[in-house]
Amino acid sequence: MSENFCKITFRPVNRTVRVNTGTTVWEAAAKADIFLDAPCGGRGRCGKCRIRLDEGRPPLSDQERKLLSSEDIERGVRLACVTRVTKDSIVEILPESGGIFPQILEFGGEGREGTLLDPPLRKVALAGFADRLRESRSSDSEVIREITGANGNTETSLEFLKLTAEAVHAPHASQTAVIVSDGRFLGLTDINRAVYGIALDVGTTTVVGALMDLKSGEQLSVASRLNAQAVHGADTISRINFCAARADGLHELNRRVVGTVNEIVEELCDESAVNPGDIWEMTVVGNTTMVHLFLGVTPQYLGRMPYTPVFRQPPRVDAGQLELKLNPHANVHVLPCIGSFVGADSVGVILSRGMVRSDRINMAVDIGTNGEILIGSSTRMLASSTAAGPALEGAEISCGMRAAAGAIERVTVENGDVTFKVIGNRDPIGVCGSGLVDLAATLLQHEVLDPSGRLLAPDDLAKPVRAKFAKRIISRPEGNEFVIYKDTNRELRLTQRDVRKIQLAKGAIRAGIEILKDELGVANEDINAVFLAGAFGNYISKSSAVGIGLLPPFPLEKIKPVGNAAGAGAKLALLSRQARLEAREIAGRTEHVELGGKPAFQNAFADAMGFPTP
Amino acid sequence: MSENFCKITFRPVNRTVRVNTGTTVWEAAAKADIFLDAPCGGRGRCGKCRIRLDEGRPPLSDQERKLLSSEDIERGVRLACVTRVTKDSIVEILPESGGIFPQILEFGGEGREGTLLDPPLRKVALAGFADRLRESRSSDSEVIREITGANGNTETSLEFLKLTAEAVHAPHASQTAVIVSDGRFLGLTDINRAVYGIALDVGTTTVVGALMDLKSGEQLSVASRLNAQAVHGADTISRINFCAARADGLHELNRRVVGTVNEIVEELCDESAVNPGDIWEMTVVGNTTMVHLFLGVTPQYLGRMPYTPVFRQPPRVDAGQLELKLNPHANVHVLPCIGSFVGADSVGVILSRGMVRSDRINMAVDIGTNGEILIGSSTRMLASSTAAGPALEGAEISCGMRAAAGAIERVTVENGDVTFKVIGNRDPIGVCGSGLVDLAATLLQHEVLDPSGRLLAPDDLAKPVRAKFAKRIISRPEGNEFVIYKDTNRELRLTQRDVRKIQLAKGAIRAGIEILKDELGVANEDINAVFLAGAFGNYISKSSAVGIGLLPPFPLEKIKPVGNAAGAGAKLALLSRQARLEAREIAGRTEHVELGGKPAFQNAFADAMGFPTP
Repeated sequence: MSENFCKITFRPVNRTVRVNTGTTVWEAAAKADIFLDAPCGGRGRCGKCRIRLDEGRPPLSDQERKLLSSEDIERGVRLACVTRVTKDSIVEILPESGGIFPQILEFGGEGREGTLLDPPLRKVALAGFADRLRESRSSDSEVIREITGANGNTETSLEFLKLTAEAVHAPHASQTAVIVSDGRFLGLTDINRAVYGIALDVGTTTVVGALMDLKSGEQLSVASRLNAQAVHGADTISRINFCAARADGLHELNRRVVGTVNEIVEELCDESAVNPGDIWEMTVVGNTTMVHLFLGVTPQYLGRMPYTPVFRQPPRVDAGQLELKLNPHANVHVLPCIGSFVGADSVGVILSRGMVRSDRINMAVDIGTNGEILIGSSTRMLASSTAAGPALEGAEISCGMRAAAGAIERVTVENGDVTFKVIGNRDPIGVCGSGLVDLAATLLQHEVLDPSGRLLAPDDLAKPVRAKFAKRIISRPEGNEFVIYKDTNRELRLTQRDVRKIQLAKGAIRAGIEILKDELGVANEDINAVFLAGAFGNYISKSSAVGIGLLPPFPLEKIKPVGNAAGAGAKLALLSRQARLEAREIAGRTEHVELGGKPAFQNAFADAMGFPTP
Repeated sequence: MSENFCKITFRPVNRTVRVNTGTTVWEAAAKADIFLDAPCGGRGRCGKCRIRLDEGRPPLSDQERKLLSSEDIERGVRLACVTRVTKDSIVEILPESGGIFPQILEFGGEGREGTLLDPPLRKVALAGFADRLRESRSSDSEVIREITGANGNTETSLEFLKLTAEAVHAPHASQTAVIVSDGRFLGLTDINRAVYGIALDVGTTTVVGALMDLKSGEQLSVASRLNAQAVHGADTISRINFCAARADGLHELNRRVVGTVNEIVEELCDESAVNPGDIWEMTVVGNTTMVHLFLGVTPQYLGRMPYTPVFRQPPRVDAGQLELKLNPHANVHVLPCIGSFVGADSVGVILSRGMVRSDRINMAVDIGTNGEILIGSSTRMLASSTAAGPALEGAEISCGMRAAAGAIERVTVENGDVTFKVIGNRDPIGVCGSGLVDLAATLLQHEVLDPSGRLLAPDDLAKPVRAKFAKRIISRPEGNEFVIYKDTNRELRLTQRDVRKIQLAKGAIRAGIEILKDELGVANEDINAVFLAGAFGNYISKSSAVGIGLLPPFPLEKIKPVGNAAGAGAKLALLSRQARLEAREIAGRTEHVELGGKPAFQNAFADAMGFPTP
């Protein structure tokens, strides 16, 4: 090894790096992905970055003489930030030096390997402020900018200036820390107080919040509530119409969702015994309508030509402006939207699945009233939204219901007859989306449904199932009906009309998938994985989804339910600076493919309406 | 001339430019410094940039067919923005095209030749908004950014989004204009409403405001008031002490100056019949203490070690935050400060005298309680502040007074005796600064004062003046006194102690000048001009100032009183984008030379205390 380099081995982690002679131990540690947690940021002022050298100890610096006890010096303790390596050495990181080994975030799983805990929000001690002010003779605000490592663009508000002018000159200034995020100074806190953030997913139906410790990256608690806007309509269109129809409509819907969020915040704080004033940041995902309403911006132009949002990149907002019960200066960072019908929630899905980081082509489908389809790789990313209607959520189906207690959620065939699983193990009162998909797949497989979607008459059934299935079919002039369940109180039937609605819904989604595949120029076998995002994706049977043609005939192992991937995106944007930047990049470069206007979509839709031949 | 170029002559102004074939007439006009005033900004949408071509008319474009009448087309009218030149042509600018010939600003005079009227604040019509929204399918905020030519960094506040979402979709959206300045959207206005700005100079004693039309650059009115803070002390130190001593001191002083400014605003609006809501911007200069107090930021750390300001680059503020009675969203742009004792007022002086634009070395001196000295060129700029004390303002002098009615402002010798000029042509009641400087210079010239500053006894006087001067001298044990004026009510005397105070004051300023010259490495003859800024500089006699050694022995023609040069800087920053950028550059690169700590200053001060030999 050349004389210009030294080999440094860190204990107890046993990592070795090769650095130039004269490099500080602090820098060498960083090269080994070990970050020493010193309030002064490695400037030889706080005496916290203590390490021990057995041999090859360089001469003591003035700072070390001042900051270390003679016992420490005796046993070889040094400060990493002022100790320069001169030869191959073994460095012991002392526990009190708070060495941080980079923590890998696990939200999002395989698509996000290697994303480090590195929150955009930073808490920086004002230690050394007075010294530096004296030395540099610049202004308070310049020294704070320097200490926080904030660049020249970091905005200093008048309020912040007033606040800091008091605090930094006070006797206990060294106990004060500055909170910075998104290029803004947010406020001051005691250096010993923890800082927290909330990752929020504002769904049309459900709002979910996760309270995170921004130092450890740990999730402390999760809480969810039904979106209190639901009383004014179940889907985004009815919310938009409510805003357009009533003068106070926007205000009313905004108040309702803010109320829901504040209940969640309260529950999160209670559960984890956290002071709301210590929550300094909130990241938010949701569809474009929901994030407009959350910010109190009218969504009504999303509902009429030319269907444009007021914003895609949300403005800077603090919690106080929205009357959120966090620290009033907390930074509310809403993730950007891709377009009117592909929102920040889709950005969250793409982010958490690492779709634009992958060289392989992945697809994500989020099925709700609108089905969002996302497909692409690091090269090109496409997004689309298709109006599936609420059938796959159980609405507008004669026997349909939401996925709640009493809903049939699984349908299979045993001993030649249909059997089912009910949420809450009780007598069924309806069929939810996953049950409907199963039911259609089952009937198709047993040839009770033909590929055109016709429910056959008893006599037309295939022999193996005729015995028991035939009894369940009721012939009617307007089309046959299939009796799923019957007791003294109720009879649950799948009508021919219900089947048509399922066909329309799954056809719309499938047609969207086909159009996007065409646009990207890929075939099924080119697609590495299909992520099913959202609650529906978690409950649906993969084989039934392929069976009815909702999804193309992918090998089932390629289909991966990924749960709340949008919410995972919000967590990533809270905990990783790089992820937050990536979200912006995703919104900027994902191409929104308009389906409605395309003749190709009408053709694909017509094709996708039918069922596959089993 | 090559075939690739055309020669275009514009009528009626008779300017000719040479441009590439294929250049639009719009671009050619800009090259000739003729700016066509079209709301669409040269995008072929508004039909306003009408010109006429006699020959060489290119084929009509679709836009022209749509936007011009057939009579117009007949007589050769075209739109400058879509007409591309193909050969040498004569272009007539039609009056209705609103061709604007660049207006040269005259504030600041010779140092600012060629500074164009180009206000940072812009009013941009939303004409074409709906079309572009439809075409681009981007968001409202993106289209507004595009229309206003604002770059990606222009901050969109939540409030602005809410406001525009309403306005841009309203039936009269084409009547709406957006106001943008300093990278921020400020608000909306009717396209036909004028926009105004105020240039404000917050002095320790006097506050002056000028109301400017931001389209024409015209100054509509000027108003001034005594700074209502004066009841709590005449100088910055007493204001700083007041803040340090009283819990509500800062609030009280801030309320007072804001009250003063609001009175000025009211007077300006009344006088020019301007609606305060149409005032969208205010630029502000003042010393560092005054701008801190104006913004409500404590100046108390300016008064104690290490004497640092809270800010040098002021934060973004809107009028509402400061409770100024302009449009509440008006941008309040405080010019940056150089240091604790060299403030935004000095930046204004350097800016308006074009000192950093000149290759020649210029000096500016602003004499007040603190004397600010500025010296340099485009290569290097130095600034310093020296504690002259209030003697040159007439304070702390036995016969001294402010420059008000009854003050002796000029002293000369006629017929062998002193004679004087009194402000208001009445019996004198005191002597103001310019009178004191004249008096000292006169006594020195006639050898009544010796170079050490001693007032001679009658017998020691030179013969030519002995007859009349001797009678005016009263011998006293503590030093002789010179009787300037006497009537039945009062006797105005210059005591030996008064002379010492004048020596201290002028010595401090002169020492500062010498130190800065040394630091820059220049001699008197290297200095191109000496600007005397401020009221005192306007009234002082140049020869007396040189005579007593307040200024080095410059040829008198080099010494130029420039009036309120700081206020002229505020006007420039209001009317010229380039000047506003330059102000920031000035604050960034002007080096503050600390005098107090330097032994060299003590020496220079000792040298400068004496008077020159006449």
